[in-house]
Amino acid sequence: MELRQKPRIGVMGPALCLPEVYNIAREVGYLIGKKGGILICGGRGGVMEASAKGVREAGGISIGILPGASASEANPYIDIPIVTDLGNARNAISVLTSQAIIAIHGSYGTLSEIALALKCHTPVVGLDTWDLTPPGGVTLPIIYARTAEEAVTTAWGLILAE
Amino acid sequence: MELRQKPRIGVMGPALCLPEVYNIAREVGYLIGKKGGILICGGRGGVMEASAKGVREAGGISIGILPGASASEANPYIDIPIVTDLGNARNAISVLTSQAIIAIHGSYGTLSEIALALKCHTPVVGLDTWDLTPPGGVTLPIIYARTAEEAVTTAWGLILAE
Amino acid sequence: MELRQKPRIGVMGPALCLPEVYNIAREVGYLIGKKGGILICGGRGGVMEASAKGVREAGGISIGILPGASASEANPYIDIPIVTDLGNARNAISVLTSQAIIAIHGSYGTLSEIALALKCHTPVVGLDTWDLTPPGGVTLPIIYARTAEEAVTTAWGLILAE
Amino acid sequence: MELRQKPRIGVMGPALCLPEVYNIAREVGYLIGKKGGILICGGRGGVMEASAKGVREAGGISIGILPGASASEANPYIDIPIVTDLGNARNAISVLTSQAIIAIHGSYGTLSEIALALKCHTPVVGLDTWDLTPPGGVTLPIIYARTAEEAVTTAWGLILAE
Repeated sequence: MELRQKPRIGVMGPALCLPEVYNIAREVGYLIGKKGGILICGGRGGVMEASAKGVREAGGISIGILPGASASEANPYIDIPIVTDLGNARNAISVLTSQAIIAIHGSYGTLSEIALALKCHTPVVGLDTWDLTPPGGVTLPIIYARTAEEAVTTAWGLILAE
Repeated sequence: MELRQKPRIGVMGPALCLPEVYNIAREVGYLIGKKGGILICGGRGGVMEASAKGVREAGGISIGILPGASASEANPYIDIPIVTDLGNARNAISVLTSQAIIAIHGSYGTLSEIALALKCHTPVVGLDTWDLTPPGGVTLPIIYARTAEEAVTTAWGLILAE
Repeated sequence: MELRQKPRIGVMGPALCLPEVYNIAREVGYLIGKKGGILICGGRGGVMEASAKGVREAGGISIGILPGASASEANPYIDIPIVTDLGNARNAISVLTSQAIIAIHGSYGTLSEIALALKCHTPVVGLDTWDLTPPGGVTLPIIYARTAEEAVTTAWGLILAE
Repeated sequence: MELRQKPRIGVMGPALCLPEVYNIAREVGYLIGKKGGILICGGRGGVMEASAKGVREAGGISIGILPGASASEANPYIDIPIVTDLGNARNAISVLTSQAIIAIHGSYGTLSEIALALKCHTPVVGLDTWDLTPPGGVTLPIIYARTAEEAVTTAWGLILAE
């Protein structure tokens, strides 16, 4: 088992979401698992749970970077909980640990992860997420995708191209 | 001396900036100091240095929440360096420690701070900074100001109103 | 694959060590892997590398909680690097993520991990490590073992007994 | 005001303590304040509160590096709360921010701070605290003091000698 060689893809999104967003996140997770990738997520509900569920259905591995002090806050589809007790500061770890991130929908927590990823030059693929208008001409590298498959294929390709 | 009663205002912005942005940040810092506030910033160059310089000129106190492992990376106007060695995760501390933040211009690092502040319900006053277009109708509470004075007066009023 | 059910055992020890300490750490890792446990370690050299090497030889999984900002600092036996960029503060994550820790030899870094684990009521098994004399009658729950096998069996039993 | 030039001394000790320990910590704080130093502490009860109270009585400044997400958990003598929401990981910040630490009594939390300080080569002065017996001949640089005055004088001298 050469786990280390497996690409690590972060899936970022809200803890509460509508069923259609949940389904897209689950499909994203499933496709990551099918390709043999490792899912990095925040370990809790909504998009985090959906993507972990998808990965499990595909037989893959999910890592949950948890904000609190107990592994018990992980959703039931997390294989390996990383217990940080860092609150929102754990977002920085999720981003650094991922080789690419897929942002799905999301509110301010997701936005902070997108921003940190772009700052760290980690590729960001967006699915129906923030549309950023930077001040003063910052180049904007969010790559927008229209479907779960396009998002995963794009993220995967960017990791392999590195 | 009742330091604890003094409002803590965070000033967030880029480490590299044009002279006109530097001057605005310096004026913001000066006004915070004149009002008797404590400046919270990232402790390094650009907007962080300018705001700390302004505070010092007004006889106030500046706190620099540093990303690295040594106090020596603080700019010369930081009165009290807080040495975190947390890298970008230190942004979460700057935001939580501030009772309101003023975002000046800025790139992705500043955006991550704006996002965390809005997530934590910390008031954000913007000066020529990001114009956010949230997906799915999130209410956007950045309060835009046109001048340094308007920004500080607004932030100050929001803290006192809490 | 029910990865989540697998016990997570932390192995803590110095980044530089003598060959006999390296061999003990490797045996500890091997035994954790053989039992089907997941190794949590600091991801770098010395005891961290030895335990990860042992886990790999047994076909198990190793997680490296790295202090720096790049996955490239992981030793070659780490399957899943968690990139924190938190410096020494990452020790708190290693401890919280482990359900029991085995401390092997070690200097001040290991001591800080032992102390945090005891504070958090995480069982600590010691192999030729610190002998603590607490002030004022604190009960001392380091459980000393004499061999790698005794250490792993003890840690494993404590996790299952929870 | 040249706040930045003022030495930063960390006082570490338990959140719950006996009256005699409280009084020693208060005297330590008072002496730090009288010398014009800045107190770095954990911001909460017991030794942390006592040392901050002493500093205030001497007209000095106290910084509280708080583990939780709200400034309201600071004791009433903290002038400037630093709100980290990092739990025990905040100990690493307290240590890095201090130029010397004085450890008073204490349990495992204090021990983790002593260990991190020694690892980072920050001088540690001990007052009725842990007696460490390191494995394998690590040089032990805790400097033991018998009185509050001896502790502060020693810490102060070590900072100036750097």
